[in-house]
Amino acid sequence: MSQGDDGRRICPEPPRRRSGDCERLDGWGFADSGFRIHANGTVELSGDRYDLAGAELPDLLPWVSRTIGVPLDPHEVNPSQYPPAVPEPRENPAFLGELRKFLPDDALCDDPENRLRHGHGHTQEEIYAIKHGRLARIPDLVVYPNGVEQIEALVAAALRHGACLIPYGGGTNVTQALLCPADEERIIASVNMSRMNRVLWIDPENRMACIEAGAVGREIVEILEQHGFTMGHEPDSIEFSTLGGWIATHASGMKKNRYGNIEDLVLDVCAVTVDGLMTRSSVSPRESVGVDLRRWLYGSEGNLGIVTHATVKLFPLPEVQHYESVVFRSFEEGFAFLYELAQQGAPPASVRLVDNLQFQFSRALKPSSVGLKRLMGRFEKFYVTRVKGFDPDEMVACTLLFEGSRVEVAAQEAALFRIARKHGGLRAGAENGKRGYELTFAIAYIRDFMMDHYLLAESFETSVSWSQALALCENVKRRIREEHAARSLPGVPFISCRVTQLYDTGVCVYFYFAYYYEGIDRPSEVFTEMERAARDEVLSSGGSLSHHDGIGKLREEFLPEIMSAPMLEWSRRIKNAVDPQNVFGSANHGVGGVKPRR
Amino acid sequence: MSQGDDGRRICPEPPRRRSGDCERLDGWGFADSGFRIHANGTVELSGDRYDLAGAELPDLLPWVSRTIGVPLDPHEVNPSQYPPAVPEPRENPAFLGELRKFLPDDALCDDPENRLRHGHGHTQEEIYAIKHGRLARIPDLVVYPNGVEQIEALVAAALRHGACLIPYGGGTNVTQALLCPADEERIIASVNMSRMNRVLWIDPENRMACIEAGAVGREIVEILEQHGFTMGHEPDSIEFSTLGGWIATHASGMKKNRYGNIEDLVLDVCAVTVDGLMTRSSVSPRESVGVDLRRWLYGSEGNLGIVTHATVKLFPLPEVQHYESVVFRSFEEGFAFLYELAQQGAPPASVRLVDNLQFQFSRALKPSSVGLKRLMGRFEKFYVTRVKGFDPDEMVACTLLFEGSRVEVAAQEAALFRIARKHGGLRAGAENGKRGYELTFAIAYIRDFMMDHYLLAESFETSVSWSQALALCENVKRRIREEHAARSLPGVPFISCRVTQLYDTGVCVYFYFAYYYEGIDRPSEVFTEMERAARDEVLSSGGSLSHHDGIGKLREEFLPEIMSAPMLEWSRRIKNAVDPQNVFGSANHGVGGVKPRR
Repeated sequence: MSQGDDGRRICPEPPRRRSGDCERLDGWGFADSGFRIHANGTVELSGDRYDLAGAELPDLLPWVSRTIGVPLDPHEVNPSQYPPAVPEPRENPAFLGELRKFLPDDALCDDPENRLRHGHGHTQEEIYAIKHGRLARIPDLVVYPNGVEQIEALVAAALRHGACLIPYGGGTNVTQALLCPADEERIIASVNMSRMNRVLWIDPENRMACIEAGAVGREIVEILEQHGFTMGHEPDSIEFSTLGGWIATHASGMKKNRYGNIEDLVLDVCAVTVDGLMTRSSVSPRESVGVDLRRWLYGSEGNLGIVTHATVKLFPLPEVQHYESVVFRSFEEGFAFLYELAQQGAPPASVRLVDNLQFQFSRALKPSSVGLKRLMGRFEKFYVTRVKGFDPDEMVACTLLFEGSRVEVAAQEAALFRIARKHGGLRAGAENGKRGYELTFAIAYIRDFMMDHYLLAESFETSVSWSQALALCENVKRRIREEHAARSLPGVPFISCRVTQLYDTGVCVYFYFAYYYEGIDRPSEVFTEMERAARDEVLSSGGSLSHHDGIGKLREEFLPEIMSAPMLEWSRRIKNAVDPQNVFGSANHGVGGVKPRR
Repeated sequence: MSQGDDGRRICPEPPRRRSGDCERLDGWGFADSGFRIHANGTVELSGDRYDLAGAELPDLLPWVSRTIGVPLDPHEVNPSQYPPAVPEPRENPAFLGELRKFLPDDALCDDPENRLRHGHGHTQEEIYAIKHGRLARIPDLVVYPNGVEQIEALVAAALRHGACLIPYGGGTNVTQALLCPADEERIIASVNMSRMNRVLWIDPENRMACIEAGAVGREIVEILEQHGFTMGHEPDSIEFSTLGGWIATHASGMKKNRYGNIEDLVLDVCAVTVDGLMTRSSVSPRESVGVDLRRWLYGSEGNLGIVTHATVKLFPLPEVQHYESVVFRSFEEGFAFLYELAQQGAPPASVRLVDNLQFQFSRALKPSSVGLKRLMGRFEKFYVTRVKGFDPDEMVACTLLFEGSRVEVAAQEAALFRIARKHGGLRAGAENGKRGYELTFAIAYIRDFMMDHYLLAESFETSVSWSQALALCENVKRRIREEHAARSLPGVPFISCRVTQLYDTGVCVYFYFAYYYEGIDRPSEVFTEMERAARDEVLSSGGSLSHHDGIGKLREEFLPEIMSAPMLEWSRRIKNAVDPQNVFGSANHGVGGVKPRR
């Protein structure tokens, strides 16, 4: 990917992995962070990585209990049985023998817990399975290639010796993309990309960087910042997910209004397929050179080849970064505000509208404040509810992040608050905005914690046109309640949504769903049935199968409902044409999967 | 592509074809428009479609003569021999018989001149061939389907009876995409999409429109404007090119800074492949549903299937539309201005920088002005050259088009002129800006006119990073002069460039090349050799093979220089997988073509 004038380029040092940055094997996130419960029933997030960490959260359990209509007893725990028994690794001595020719010993690992970790992502079903069940099939081997040549040799070896390869980035997917096909007879090697984690070069003049596929979001951010740049891509998983994963899942970032989604940021992609290294002689700002094969890797989810590195756009660090928040009387008023904001054409970097339940949830996550802060909190609440007459059980909040030059941000703010006022919005301040924005990272830990307390929870997302969005939200919530009632499950389900992305023609909607499962048989499967029903409702309400999570094995059954038969036939033909041996056998049935509906 | 709430949709009337809108068969454009020469040597553009039309252009021939170093004698003409002899149509009675079952008689045409027109685009080689040579192979039949069902039946018939199909939109391509493979033994049916030219619906709330592939740019503009919207896509060929053609060639519009290129505007594409109709259940603002097969049609150039209709984004008509222009002392100063303009992040809808030769060219195209206007023209010139010390043989011009709200445009203008001043730019007014912008449409007619006066001319484009752009322009100009000299051709070549698009990481550069060919053997082939040398120079200077024109048959020989062998192998595999019989046989060797270098 030579740009000719390498002289102007900067080649940064490789990222320094901090000793403390150890990730847990039995759930989400860093090993030093996680929610725990005190004898007095207050909850605390351990570690010191997040604003929430270390503070006592007295309101969380009581609020959850009220919300789900079931009193949560802190002492009533469903203890994790991790690690589960794992299947014995399959052998393929010829394959292994060839790998040893070009891979050092420490690049090959068959440790059971490590193999297990490479065999799942973070869906409710997968986490429940490793804590309370088992995985029928996991990788037999984990390999750690270091460079394009080793990946080319790896793919050649897999071809020669009939092995199956499944690339592994951050392992953060929520689509069961990493779940191994149970009927896979071949040896499965998980290709861990963590040794290809370098920013190879930064081109300040043309504002581009070439980055290896295994580079982790938080490290990309750190290195680019040292040189005054940002890629601007900030998915919720940025702490752990990788550039290669972003491309393979067609990822979206929270600040896409300013920086764009992954397809807007990536200028060139290199990948190793069964035919070898797909690469180009130069990186163009934009071109028309026939069907662009590089674009075929977006959303390929590891089924067509292994992304090795990519060239991305860079942006100078913003002059101003400013959080804000606005509260509205109702979700409908907040949504009307979003629509007008999008129509006038310059929304800030991030705009997210949470419904009333999530608004209450974020309040329940407030640490026990004291003194003036507590007083202010009460005063704020008094002002908003009593003076302004907002109903605590109806009102919603919108968190905002502005990035850009002082002039840009000032103009965006002026326009935005004018529109907000028009829709009855009240400014709720920068602190609430920042808190709401960053809560995303802490909330990711709650699901695993709640699971131990008989609550199964999961998020799912979709994209939908403006005119259909409100009805879709209502339909999905209604359907979940119906499905929950039809099974006479205890209490009431937790179902909440937020709008996380604005587009010219519609929005991305993110749902949280949880239910209390004590005494329920096969609780994870029951959850899956209800989530599937919700997905049905999403599709019949005009929503997409996924906005950014992808398909994996979780949603492939729905593909026939959104794509015509000829389009699915194309998937099969193309997968068979470019990977006839199904070396990249994760999906096991065509690009994105085309299994008949369960 | 149901959006669920069809109630809100508008279904416009079909476009009214004006009787006068007849297109010429032997060259570019409308039959009523074309340059002609008067006995006194002045030149005039006929018709009344363009600002330039009707006015006497006294300076054109003298300036061209000076520039190419050859005195052009108005009476020395190389008369067009159009129409050339055309090959007899190949027969396939079984295929024809089946077509007659579902197509009316007037949907089938074997008129020789019509078949000829469907067998070429507008490269210099093709126009020279129809005027002074012949085409070895042209379509044997032209079919005019009206609706998706007829296209499905057409493709099925072609499959059954071994016919070759080549879709035809506006016939404006400059890549020889429509040129029939000389060795094609099967019957070739050109699929003219002009009967599928409707805007099927407009969704004002979600700002989307569903438009048939055969809809012509100028008619799309007219219909959308009637409802207060624009698609914002304005390629130089907008008078004649079609939505289907824009998608198949991965087109770029002059106003992409505000509205984006075709890939940014199209939300959904439907196409008929050999497997049938590729369609989706809904149109999402953005999604992640595996590899997006719809994206594979961008740049497919008719080789994978026939685009039938697409859903595109709409924008409200801009509150303000304002032309401007700035002159700079040199191309380098103008380019430095462009770079800073792009870096500060909000360039106007269109920004184009022409070099000194094109600046002189546009002045040579000025009508003979009288009275005050002439005086002003002289005064302007005096002020710029004498007072400000601009060198008429060095200075360059930048044309600007601002679109948006009053506030947006005001902010863009303030920022832009501040940067322009910093780089020594002088405001040259709205009139010059508008003229420069619209000259594009008139200039398209000059090439055919000059051809009759022993000048062969062609444009070619590329995209390149900021840091390589200036060197690329210099290298290409030098190379053309060297190639011209090496062949001891008469006079000097006309070689000029302009920057037509700005991107974060680089620009699109557009070249004009012409040479005097009287007394030259095989002048068109000689031109081709020199253009090929220029393309070599573009690639070795870091430029792309094409920014928006595409590959066709003109550039396929260069693909092995820009794509690795595995990527080309993918092309072959995928083409063979999705069109094993090569029904869409225009390229005749894989997606985008992979023939070895000539």
